[in-house]
Amino acid sequence: MSVTAVGSVAFDALETPFGKRDKVLGGAATHFSFSASFFSSVNVVGVVGGDFGDDEWKLFEHHHVNTDDIEVIEDGRTFFWKGRYEYDMNTAHTLDTQLNVFETFDPKLSENSKNTKLLFLANILPKLQKQVREQSNAEFVAMDTMNFWIDSMKDDVIETVKVVDCVIINDAEARQLASVPNVITAAKEILSWGPRAVVIKRGEYGAALFTENSYFAIPAYPLESVFDPTGAGDTFAGGFMGYLASREKIDNEAMRRAMIYGSVMASFNVEKFGTERINGLDYPEINGRFRDFKRFTHFEEIPFEQASTAGP
Amino acid sequence: MSVTAVGSVAFDALETPFGKRDKVLGGAATHFSFSASFFSSVNVVGVVGGDFGDDEWKLFEHHHVNTDDIEVIEDGRTFFWKGRYEYDMNTAHTLDTQLNVFETFDPKLSENSKNTKLLFLANILPKLQKQVREQSNAEFVAMDTMNFWIDSMKDDVIETVKVVDCVIINDAEARQLASVPNVITAAKEILSWGPRAVVIKRGEYGAALFTENSYFAIPAYPLESVFDPTGAGDTFAGGFMGYLASREKIDNEAMRRAMIYGSVMASFNVEKFGTERINGLDYPEINGRFRDFKRFTHFEEIPFEQASTAGP
Repeated sequence: MSVTAVGSVAFDALETPFGKRDKVLGGAATHFSFSASFFSSVNVVGVVGGDFGDDEWKLFEHHHVNTDDIEVIEDGRTFFWKGRYEYDMNTAHTLDTQLNVFETFDPKLSENSKNTKLLFLANILPKLQKQVREQSNAEFVAMDTMNFWIDSMKDDVIETVKVVDCVIINDAEARQLASVPNVITAAKEILSWGPRAVVIKRGEYGAALFTENSYFAIPAYPLESVFDPTGAGDTFAGGFMGYLASREKIDNEAMRRAMIYGSVMASFNVEKFGTERINGLDYPEINGRFRDFKRFTHFEEIPFEQASTAGP
Repeated sequence: MSVTAVGSVAFDALETPFGKRDKVLGGAATHFSFSASFFSSVNVVGVVGGDFGDDEWKLFEHHHVNTDDIEVIEDGRTFFWKGRYEYDMNTAHTLDTQLNVFETFDPKLSENSKNTKLLFLANILPKLQKQVREQSNAEFVAMDTMNFWIDSMKDDVIETVKVVDCVIINDAEARQLASVPNVITAAKEILSWGPRAVVIKRGEYGAALFTENSYFAIPAYPLESVFDPTGAGDTFAGGFMGYLASREKIDNEAMRRAMIYGSVMASFNVEKFGTERINGLDYPEINGRFRDFKRFTHFEEIPFEQASTAGP
């Protein structure tokens, strides 16, 4: 089984309290695909400029990601984002955004990309997401979005939500999208528009999965040092979708484990700049943190039995 | 087994987006003891004024809480707090604080209260907490504190931390107390000062338990409407300590279940004003939410096996 990701491939300039990088490989589709590649085969649909070099292509090759659908505009420049994180590492401050070739991105799926079992619509213009979804024969389609689109074109976002199987967004975006202050109510509202699953990302606080008949919530993997949070959300989505692509059946049980693998991959992503940590990752490390998750969330289900000395 | 709680017994005036109350029974020791009473016998050490009436005493009676160590100063008035919550319900804005008889609170433990197996030091002056701890023969002593004391007398807080077995605080307080921005590092630092357990409360995001050789983390119980968060932290501590008081042995497994019972009790507390919801609570409801916790945190531990199509 395989998954296709549609979204940005970019260069990032990053400043954190722990260091800086002037130009690293980034972009939502990049982070997603590198993460998903550990679990299934992955196609990326994107666009880059003539400045996209051998070092970058080699990283996609290293992860066995199919880049046939990445268009190269030789006389254009690749999408560039510059951001800074303050000490608490929770909020990215955008210092510069140059859309470049991404400004006119008009994703066209090849036959191969149309026919993967899963499709991930990374954060792009909601109308484009819908057009991509309509090109695809995927059985399970997930989307991300962001506050910018919810602010400026909420109706378009909702129209896209209606035609996907899964929405993967952070808690502030969920509240904003559903126009309610409570995140549980917000997720249920979004679910009522059509998707069979809503995944709420809560950063250092973990993640939650809502389906029609089930609720699942996990804490984040406990990290003492977060080095660079850029791409953590897309890396989560990559682990989640990649793991699902490796399963025969996408049911609640598979989605629960996919939540864990998404969290595991995101926990690695933030430990170094850009994709550096994911590039050097191996399976024992991944399954090690998967097992850690079981260990630090497990408790014996022994209900309390009232003693004669207690209670009203 | 039993637990003694030392702290405030108060009247609260509350305003939330959902309504208001001019005078309800409140205070840390009240919320703690009502919650703990479902699991073990409880003594409260506190002080009230002549305005503390039959209705209030009857609530303590209803929960079978031993009030022998609540001093009554007939010509004084009970501690009064007035607070307002905005729409997001996360932050309490204090409108009025009248310490009244609580200003000169000098807790004296009776023989009975000295000899309970567990002791909870609710949020009072850290030096007083230490003096109470020195009066007690308890095997397991837990403390709360708040930003006000950490700001103004951090050394005193640390001296008290050194002589307790468990610190139960929220994540911002933990970071402030340990002077580090990362909550995992903060909890480990606090653990290194002497306690055998540190419990980090994260409100709507759940809670985490740190011991020397184990980490445990849980999401919060998913609630669509939070009515009044006053006392949620103390209600959590009451469920946690009350459950532990009911166990033969206070080990990691018992503490994990205690975390769940703490969260369950807190989830009820916020559903109505003051102690109203806890006053009407029964065991099937409590164990129902305990079982819910197992259901919404459970996943099968099936590690990923690399397929030939995947990965670098």
